[in-house]
Amino acid sequence: MYSVTVRDHVMIAHSFRGDVFGPAQRLHGATYVVDVEMSRPDLDADGIVVDIGRAGETLKRILAAINFRNLDEVAAFAGRNTTTEFLARFVFDEMVQAMDRGDLGPGAQAVERMKVTLHESHVASAAYEARITPRA
Amino acid sequence: MYSVTVRDHVMIAHSFRGDVFGPAQRLHGATYVVDVEMSRPDLDADGIVVDIGRAGETLKRILAAINFRNLDEVAAFAGRNTTTEFLARFVFDEMVQAMDRGDLGPGAQAVERMKVTLHESHVASAAYEARITPRA
Amino acid sequence: MYSVTVRDHVMIAHSFRGDVFGPAQRLHGATYVVDVEMSRPDLDADGIVVDIGRAGETLKRILAAINFRNLDEVAAFAGRNTTTEFLARFVFDEMVQAMDRGDLGPGAQAVERMKVTLHESHVASAAYEARITPRA
Amino acid sequence: MYSVTVRDHVMIAHSFRGDVFGPAQRLHGATYVVDVEMSRPDLDADGIVVDIGRAGETLKRILAAINFRNLDEVAAFAGRNTTTEFLARFVFDEMVQAMDRGDLGPGAQAVERMKVTLHESHVASAAYEARITPRA
Amino acid sequence: MYSVTVRDHVMIAHSFRGDVFGPAQRLHGATYVVDVEMSRPDLDADGIVVDIGRAGETLKRILAAINFRNLDEVAAFAGRNTTTEFLARFVFDEMVQAMDRGDLGPGAQAVERMKVTLHESHVASAAYEARITPRA
Amino acid sequence: MYSVTVRDHVMIAHSFRGDVFGPAQRLHGATYVVDVEMSRPDLDADGIVVDIGRAGETLKRILAAINFRNLDEVAAFAGRNTTTEFLARFVFDEMVQAMDRGDLGPGAQAVERMKVTLHESHVASAAYEARITPRA
Repeated sequence: MYSVTVRDHVMIAHSFRGDVFGPAQRLHGATYVVDVEMSRPDLDADGIVVDIGRAGETLKRILAAINFRNLDEVAAFAGRNTTTEFLARFVFDEMVQAMDRGDLGPGAQAVERMKVTLHESHVASAAYEARITPRA
Repeated sequence: MYSVTVRDHVMIAHSFRGDVFGPAQRLHGATYVVDVEMSRPDLDADGIVVDIGRAGETLKRILAAINFRNLDEVAAFAGRNTTTEFLARFVFDEMVQAMDRGDLGPGAQAVERMKVTLHESHVASAAYEARITPRA
Repeated sequence: MYSVTVRDHVMIAHSFRGDVFGPAQRLHGATYVVDVEMSRPDLDADGIVVDIGRAGETLKRILAAINFRNLDEVAAFAGRNTTTEFLARFVFDEMVQAMDRGDLGPGAQAVERMKVTLHESHVASAAYEARITPRA
Repeated sequence: MYSVTVRDHVMIAHSFRGDVFGPAQRLHGATYVVDVEMSRPDLDADGIVVDIGRAGETLKRILAAINFRNLDEVAAFAGRNTTTEFLARFVFDEMVQAMDRGDLGPGAQAVERMKVTLHESHVASAAYEARITPRA
Repeated sequence: MYSVTVRDHVMIAHSFRGDVFGPAQRLHGATYVVDVEMSRPDLDADGIVVDIGRAGETLKRILAAINFRNLDEVAAFAGRNTTTEFLARFVFDEMVQAMDRGDLGPGAQAVERMKVTLHESHVASAAYEARITPRA
Repeated sequence: MYSVTVRDHVMIAHSFRGDVFGPAQRLHGATYVVDVEMSRPDLDADGIVVDIGRAGETLKRILAAINFRNLDEVAAFAGRNTTTEFLARFVFDEMVQAMDRGDLGPGAQAVERMKVTLHESHVASAAYEARITPRA
């Protein structure tokens, strides 16, 4: 399996509901350094997994929608704890939709697996990884 | 699959037996920067894999048992080469036991896979990864 | 000149006032990975710059005062933009006060320079560095 | 599954053919920081996956063959785009051949999986990962 | 002294003349991860050293002029070895000119020192650092 | 001022004497990732600070003398705490001697400052930095 990984980051505010979060129930924030790894079994005719330039631009656009935001006020996240795990899945789903729209070019149709990792500090990260084919 | 990863470190002395180890047969030491990645297919009701605070405390407690020690004198390791690979498995097994005792909270029962990576320098690391369910 | 550096992190929310900040005028947040480097010309009798354990605990306590907070609501920061630069100076000043109180032990009286660096992402950081002796 | 990872780097020039590469169609270059992760289900009698010293030397020798080269002039790569993905596979195949020749010692026969990752910058990497057993 | 640092990267080909370079006399290439640290004694009225957004854009524009190029064919570098040290100085001089043109905003006039570091691998880097005031 | 930095590592055992060290009074060990930064005001005729290849080889040879050793048994360190700070100075002094012997080539005579940093974990490091000219 071949893969490529692109990295970008996003800076947000949010709060959590639930005793398990302790002081993180207060309004606070995070920088997430985001890695998106896309995998497919064979390379295309150009010798690549996907156009890494378009992959990076797509990731930047997805993150821009939440960058410099208080996620507690983002309608799409209402009633949810926007944990690092949850946001890894959010970026994952947005990337799949972007691929299906053709934002990464035709090669992205061959991507079979994807892993999105959000590093929230030098000592903690969370990720979501799954097969993404076949896609309806 | 969702995952969270926590990081800590430990500083130990040890020596190895076997020609393959060359000069590392002498008493020497290492700093291991330790990453523990825990994975489960779905998030809990709070939106997390496990309580990352308790995961970090558990890892710190496991490492404290061997921190600032000469592993050649640790009874539990008698007759074994405490290689980076071996120690990755040691931390893995200790984490599973801690989960089974409930040290990471009830959510840890849903953790299906775990990977423990020990970075011994900027150019070398070792890991142990396995499914941990079902557990007896 | 000898130095030691300790690292920890803090997660906060805040907003900025001023056109220069663009979208960062909205409420958002950051993880700051914080490095504190303390320098002195000679080592003490034990062969160290300062007790690195106490230095780390002191840094953790200083960061705890703002960790998981919305800095817009911290009285001490009223009317100020809590930029990365500003916060580097805040940590610097708090460290100096802690040294003067003896929190890092007697060796800290010999520390002549300090540099506090806050990494806000994998591509940006800010720092404050200054001589701290003689101190009144 | 146990694994060990060794790291080295290589500095090359090359150009790409294909509109997808944009300005990278021009002659340019890259530093690749290369990670080779080798995995097997059990440790050998010494408690290791492979001799990490020999693994590192083998990787260095493989990279030396292309280090400080213009890959456009390497006969083995004629007619191919030497993308990061392609080079990850090249290093992978060379490592398998080295294992089959015994360069990493007898333990390498037990290696079942391998992942080769090439970091081309602080924000992009590519990898090739596959089972390597049974080998003909 | 306050400072801010921004990071970007560039991928180039080049060759060196001189026995000291050994195999690097051949046409090869490098990825340089570039850090630009700008320092001034006091913050501006907004609480910053310079507009970090404009600093990053300026660095990207400077690097774009040589990105995906064979530096052996860049007229401005004719007759020079484009070593990592030399390129650190090149970026430094370009940043000073950009500041003098106002590309980083009025705050950049107060920048007194700058350090440009180019990381050519995980084990080697070079830098150029100097006072930049007073400027003619 | 121009500088180049080379990186290598060393793995040692040791123990400390003094209450300030707490559990580190026991025999333990460390991996030190070592950075040596050499600075001079102008580049040589080849466009470099020093021959980075020879600088790296010299650092490796210096570290080899203590690699895989119990520093408590190294005669040259008798009666001393081999703290990270102390070892930074040891590497510094050895590098100066190597320069004076000509191990780094004639260009090393122009090196005016040097900084040696030892990273003992992902959260702690120590360094020694000084002018090294004029040398007797």
